[in-house]
Amino acid sequence: MKLLSFVKSGRPSWGAVVDKGIVDLGARSGGQYPDLKSFVAAGRPRELLDSALAPEFGFDTVELAPVIPNPDKIVMAAVNYWDDSTDPNKVPAYPVLFLRLPSSQIAHGAPLIQPRSSQKLDFEGELAVIIGTGGRHIAAERAMSHVAGYSIYNDGSVRDWQKHSHQFTPGKNFTGTGGFGPWMVEAGDLPIPTDGVSLVTRVNGVEKQRTHTSRMIFDIPYLISYISTFAPLAPGDVIVTGTCTGFGITRSPQEFLTPGDVVEVEIDGIGVLSNSVEAEACQGGDSAAGR
Amino acid sequence: MKLLSFVKSGRPSWGAVVDKGIVDLGARSGGQYPDLKSFVAAGRPRELLDSALAPEFGFDTVELAPVIPNPDKIVMAAVNYWDDSTDPNKVPAYPVLFLRLPSSQIAHGAPLIQPRSSQKLDFEGELAVIIGTGGRHIAAERAMSHVAGYSIYNDGSVRDWQKHSHQFTPGKNFTGTGGFGPWMVEAGDLPIPTDGVSLVTRVNGVEKQRTHTSRMIFDIPYLISYISTFAPLAPGDVIVTGTCTGFGITRSPQEFLTPGDVVEVEIDGIGVLSNSVEAEACQGGDSAAGR
Repeated sequence: MKLLSFVKSGRPSWGAVVDKGIVDLGARSGGQYPDLKSFVAAGRPRELLDSALAPEFGFDTVELAPVIPNPDKIVMAAVNYWDDSTDPNKVPAYPVLFLRLPSSQIAHGAPLIQPRSSQKLDFEGELAVIIGTGGRHIAAERAMSHVAGYSIYNDGSVRDWQKHSHQFTPGKNFTGTGGFGPWMVEAGDLPIPTDGVSLVTRVNGVEKQRTHTSRMIFDIPYLISYISTFAPLAPGDVIVTGTCTGFGITRSPQEFLTPGDVVEVEIDGIGVLSNSVEAEACQGGDSAAGR
Repeated sequence: MKLLSFVKSGRPSWGAVVDKGIVDLGARSGGQYPDLKSFVAAGRPRELLDSALAPEFGFDTVELAPVIPNPDKIVMAAVNYWDDSTDPNKVPAYPVLFLRLPSSQIAHGAPLIQPRSSQKLDFEGELAVIIGTGGRHIAAERAMSHVAGYSIYNDGSVRDWQKHSHQFTPGKNFTGTGGFGPWMVEAGDLPIPTDGVSLVTRVNGVEKQRTHTSRMIFDIPYLISYISTFAPLAPGDVIVTGTCTGFGITRSPQEFLTPGDVVEVEIDGIGVLSNSVEAEACQGGDSAAGR
């Protein structure tokens, strides 16, 4: 089943996608599960999901939210796919991980914001893993039982700020840069991590990235095990599993996003995450310059 | 005034330090301010603070919590102090920032956990800034008006995991490594950032780090302005302003913490944050090894 978060008439809720519409399971739960995170934490009780038989309203009546708007943590992997040019001797021994703040997330269809302090906004299409059952020191062999579902992420990156120092934090946490949607597909409905699924990113309809989740360098069980060695995973946590070659700054010549561009990330069996680029509004205080 | 978070008889609350005891302002607010973050967000109304005249109970009747147990974000600066050996030509143009997860925080007096997956637990004594008024694009000239208060942080670092890749995330986010306490002192009660205050770190009573906040490379107004350029600051957010030379891995020979060690970080006008080291319990699943 596909589960999503949305705002309807100013009220945040969550629900299921049925046919081409939405069932408001937040309302139907009578407040027991106020958000998708709480429903995931409860183990996604089937009774409630089974009650979603016919759509209650269409997508045009709601504003989508990031799939999990309020995760306790978002752990991001950097480039994490083998390709034809990967030098096995240069593959790192451990995954490269950084954190993204929930405040940087945007929904499917919401604008990807080019900050006024940069002209180097870039895209990275990725598979997002949503944790169902939390835990620490999760062994890789048991890791997949901790996954609630999968979604699509665009790890929008402000490259110059990412390279202000050796730590990626600033460039990976700009407001309006983390596309997350349109929904999560429950783990049992996708052939991950068995056969895997394909992952394609397009800008203005032109394919820029293409890979397959079977080509991950550090696979999902490994990432869950590694992360849970240092931090406890909690229900609703999001692990974004890294991108493949082809993003803008690696192209020749380099390509950055400008207002009006449309970025689509498509994953087989999940759907398409689409965000168009807008320039940040020119108001408010000053931005910090370098020392 | 000194404000702190604690758990009393299993119930989380917060309050003020009066004489050598505590006034439970969470209870006194009748649920209006369930945690210190919500009180800080409300602008620290004086009526409630002025009602704290005599202590209601002693420190020995509560378990302290991290000063802000539930910040929306914890932004950490890496080494950020000039010292006699600093080469001005090698000082970076921008601060080195990384994120710490709230799940890694511990209170004053709680054990600092040496993980079973590492023998390289290290200390870093730092000044913590607690944001009162949130905002984005905060100009440096106005930044100090966004500060609610100050506290002490021990940025406990697991050095081998910090160096698994070029991103610090794993080594800076182990459970039980972020000492934060014992309380926050309201901004107006300290000469920061005018005269500054001294900052000293001791291990088992032996001084290891000594500096003065007037020697910060990137000062507090700059950090607030820089961070708020990419992410909105929210009430209760914590900015940990970086350490000075003298932490264990920089010493010759290198020194790492072992169970039984006591780390004290002292800041003039705030107090002493003390944590003793304990080994992680040997139970639960397996830890992830390198690829």
